[in-house]
Amino acid sequence: MSIDPPSKVYLVGSGPGSPELLTLRAVELLRRCDVVLHDRLIQEEVLQYASRATCIPVGKKRGSPGNGRQKEIAGLMIHYAQAGCMTVRLKGGDPFIFGRGGEEALALIQAGISFEVVPGVSSFHAAPELFGIPLTHRGLSSGFAVFTGHEAADGSASGIPWEVAARIPTAVFLMGVSTLPQIVSQLTYYGRSPQTPAAVISRATWADQEIAVGTLNSIAEKARLLKAPAIVVVGEVVSLQEALHQEGKLPDNLQADASQVSIGSL
Amino acid sequence: MSIDPPSKVYLVGSGPGSPELLTLRAVELLRRCDVVLHDRLIQEEVLQYASRATCIPVGKKRGSPGNGRQKEIAGLMIHYAQAGCMTVRLKGGDPFIFGRGGEEALALIQAGISFEVVPGVSSFHAAPELFGIPLTHRGLSSGFAVFTGHEAADGSASGIPWEVAARIPTAVFLMGVSTLPQIVSQLTYYGRSPQTPAAVISRATWADQEIAVGTLNSIAEKARLLKAPAIVVVGEVVSLQEALHQEGKLPDNLQADASQVSIGSL
Repeated sequence: MSIDPPSKVYLVGSGPGSPELLTLRAVELLRRCDVVLHDRLIQEEVLQYASRATCIPVGKKRGSPGNGRQKEIAGLMIHYAQAGCMTVRLKGGDPFIFGRGGEEALALIQAGISFEVVPGVSSFHAAPELFGIPLTHRGLSSGFAVFTGHEAADGSASGIPWEVAARIPTAVFLMGVSTLPQIVSQLTYYGRSPQTPAAVISRATWADQEIAVGTLNSIAEKARLLKAPAIVVVGEVVSLQEALHQEGKLPDNLQADASQVSIGSL
Repeated sequence: MSIDPPSKVYLVGSGPGSPELLTLRAVELLRRCDVVLHDRLIQEEVLQYASRATCIPVGKKRGSPGNGRQKEIAGLMIHYAQAGCMTVRLKGGDPFIFGRGGEEALALIQAGISFEVVPGVSSFHAAPELFGIPLTHRGLSSGFAVFTGHEAADGSASGIPWEVAARIPTAVFLMGVSTLPQIVSQLTYYGRSPQTPAAVISRATWADQEIAVGTLNSIAEKARLLKAPAIVVVGEVVSLQEALHQEGKLPDNLQADASQVSIGSL
């Protein structure tokens, strides 16, 4: 049995994917830590910073609500911390934006283990902006709201306040590609015009990133072949995409092969 | 007159303040660039990465709507880019979240200058989470919306859809400290309970960071002495703050002098 005091656990956001969007703090902790418990969607180059650590994938597969899995992740964090291992829980995007980071932090506190949270760049805004869509813009959008597409699946039992989502200038849905038809039908049912510009950005900053642009009316068809994880953006700001998209707009290191970026028209 | 082709302009997010929350990409660009046009609220340690560049503060002062100033900023970006200088436009938080980054990008495009956007960690979520407030949490908040406090000042002419802001599980207001009384009165007028938990986080990751916690009823009084810039969070997730706040929770390098962190009670 270890006689070391429990180590702290670091709940670290890794950003949307590219190692270029890691924070300095995230890199420092990856370099120093003993164990990395990471989501499945983490790029290999990110994990290479943790060259002295044991890296263990713990992420949930898409579609599984994964409460049991979540308990297992908490158990692993507690296990390694109690063994005196400096442990990084590496999460895609930001740990506290739909990342269940709050639940993981509470589990640590209940086990008497201290934690630190390291904010990360969330893909909900990074993905649209890298493709020329700002979530706010004077005259077009005075605010935005963010939900998950997962919750769009179960109709009336959904946790999404659709009457709110339909009326916010810019509505963003994380993990929204598989539930896009439900998102569209709920938003239009609650009064959003079918002509509202909409975009889906798939796997931003990954080599196979893609965007589809259309309207609420057309976006489900246009985004039909896009892969998860994807960000859905609905609102007039999407109309800026045509003007703001330009060759070389993506940071050089984030630039995907241009042939893989398909731009639909409005 | 320069014979160089115009340089690219980099619209770079610097995060909430601490250099630890810069992205690798931001640091790389600061190190390489010739000119930095930066907001006023950038820490000295951040600018030190741009040791070979000329650093020019261009930020607007609080309270000035600053359309003239915005034009001047665009003019400076274009001037330096046309002179062949690799130019970083360094903005607090994320460049495209209430940063008028979209307007700056459009001005560059109109001048025939290409740009790249580098997403940053936005203080709207980093500030609350560093003080133990996740914006989403299962059972408490299925989504959040983000607005600016500036727009709360002008009553009915405001761009904020208050009936939406009052009904979203978690409502966040950037730059909300001076308009907090208006935010409170609008939200309660549109039906938000005065007992809803609310928090104000002032100057997160700066040495003088502070938090005030209360309810919609009490928060304006409790946050009376807090300095701008501040983030206002309204919603049940604020009730997690007591459980999730712990000594040493803030990353070591971001930890302010504990005596300067004042925690109110609900």
